Amino acid sequence: MNLGSRPQILITNDDGIHASGIKALIEAAKPFGDLLVVAPDKPQSGMGHAITIHDPIRLSKDNSYSGVEAYACSGTPVDCIKLGIYELLGRKPDLILSGFNHGENSSTNVLYSGTMSAAIEGAMEGVPSFGFSLADYAPDANFTAAQHYAQKLLAHFFIKGFESSICLNVNIPKLPLEQIKGIRFCKQAHAYWADRFDKRQDQFGRTYYWLTGEFADLDQRPDTDLHALKEGFVSVVPTHFDLTAHGHLPYFKSWENEI
Amino acid sequence: MNLGSRPQILITNDDGIHASGIKALIEAAKPFGDLLVVAPDKPQSGMGHAITIHDPIRLSKDNSYSGVEAYACSGTPVDCIKLGIYELLGRKPDLILSGFNHGENSSTNVLYSGTMSAAIEGAMEGVPSFGFSLADYAPDANFTAAQHYAQKLLAHFFIKGFESSICLNVNIPKLPLEQIKGIRFCKQAHAYWADRFDKRQDQFGRTYYWLTGEFADLDQRPDTDLHALKEGFVSVVPTHFDLTAHGHLPYFKSWENEI
Repeated sequence: MNLGSRPQILITNDDGIHASGIKALIEAAKPFGDLLVVAPDKPQSGMGHAITIHDPIRLSKDNSYSGVEAYACSGTPVDCIKLGIYELLGRKPDLILSGFNHGENSSTNVLYSGTMSAAIEGAMEGVPSFGFSLADYAPDANFTAAQHYAQKLLAHFFIKGFESSICLNVNIPKLPLEQIKGIRFCKQAHAYWADRFDKRQDQFGRTYYWLTGEFADLDQRPDTDLHALKEGFVSVVPTHFDLTAHGHLPYFKSWENEI
Repeated sequence: MNLGSRPQILITNDDGIHASGIKALIEAAKPFGDLLVVAPDKPQSGMGHAITIHDPIRLSKDNSYSGVEAYACSGTPVDCIKLGIYELLGRKPDLILSGFNHGENSSTNVLYSGTMSAAIEGAMEGVPSFGFSLADYAPDANFTAAQHYAQKLLAHFFIKGFESSICLNVNIPKLPLEQIKGIRFCKQAHAYWADRFDKRQDQFGRTYYWLTGEFADLDQRPDTDLHALKEGFVSVVPTHFDLTAHGHLPYFKSWENEI
């Protein structure tokens, strides 16, 4: 961080630049630094860590947020981070914030989430990053508690800091502020979507499918994000981008002599 | 696995159902079981762990591979896995194979890769899964060495097995078979794309951007996938879907008393 100047904060989301979640995050982040907003021009939920390779990407100035430089981007949340750093700022920001997502990104949802992929991309760039999600899908969800806890975490981050190769996956339960019990730092729960497809016919009699399903929590450990959320806490999972199953390496090392 | 019957193998990729890579993988996998192919109807590189939420998905029977049931899917590689399991098979297959990707998916590329996301989705479903990539982007790349090493690994898998919550990220170097030194089981290297955007003007004078960049290997450890590939080995990284930075949890636990 450049001492003496205000921190440069890059903000994105995956619900699109006009979602009320990013509006609430911009308000919460304003006291902490100079903001640059680069966010998708349309909803990009479920985009995971997608990047745009085969198509050109367009940026257009957006004047929705007074006093804040903002751009709508035709690409994915990860594209927004890359464009913010390499094209608009020309340097790494001091902090990257992604959210507030409309809907929870706990457990293995981190892998599907455009919100969290933007934060993980930040960590890959060596910039401390937060992904914030509220466990409420409603377009007009109340972000008061989310703003409160985001500001608490940001204030503490600016005092204590954390290693820039990780990011924080923050989920806020759908509860009034006064009913939230506090913050728990925890592990990503082992849960998954037991998927189903609605099989339907279009007007020409051709079959199509809609993805649906139910979330199955297989994890009985008390220190997971799903458990914390159920108990009424804000969950925070320190998240990295090393997918190596280190504990399994010794087993496979023996294969080297067998194959 | 149902003893006495042939293993059910689900195959996908991210370059599309007619890429020569998936054709080569189908040939290599045929001796090992009954194949069901569900692959994108168009290239889906860089799609990461994207899923299709806002659009219907279509499947159409594809007769390109004689004796093999195959479907082209309008969705992403992860959609293909979900449809294969929940709609077409109605049960979990014994094995999921994704590839051969045209191009390397070593290091942090695992996060952007549609090929590897399909394998990770397999692991999330509790099915042993492999993602195979050849370090050659050419549409007419030579997959002889890739087929040789895929068959070696599959033969060993059917003898030894591995825990179904992980998948293997297999990368084959761009070398003639006789020059490849063997197989190394290794860690995901810490490397990243130092991105750049080509800024251009369209015929109406409007700006657009193309993503480009150079790959920067920051990792000096000798036991990484990038190192193994440079030395002429096939690299195999056991890969899981727990993104928790477990080593950082104790540090953040102290925040709980401070915030």
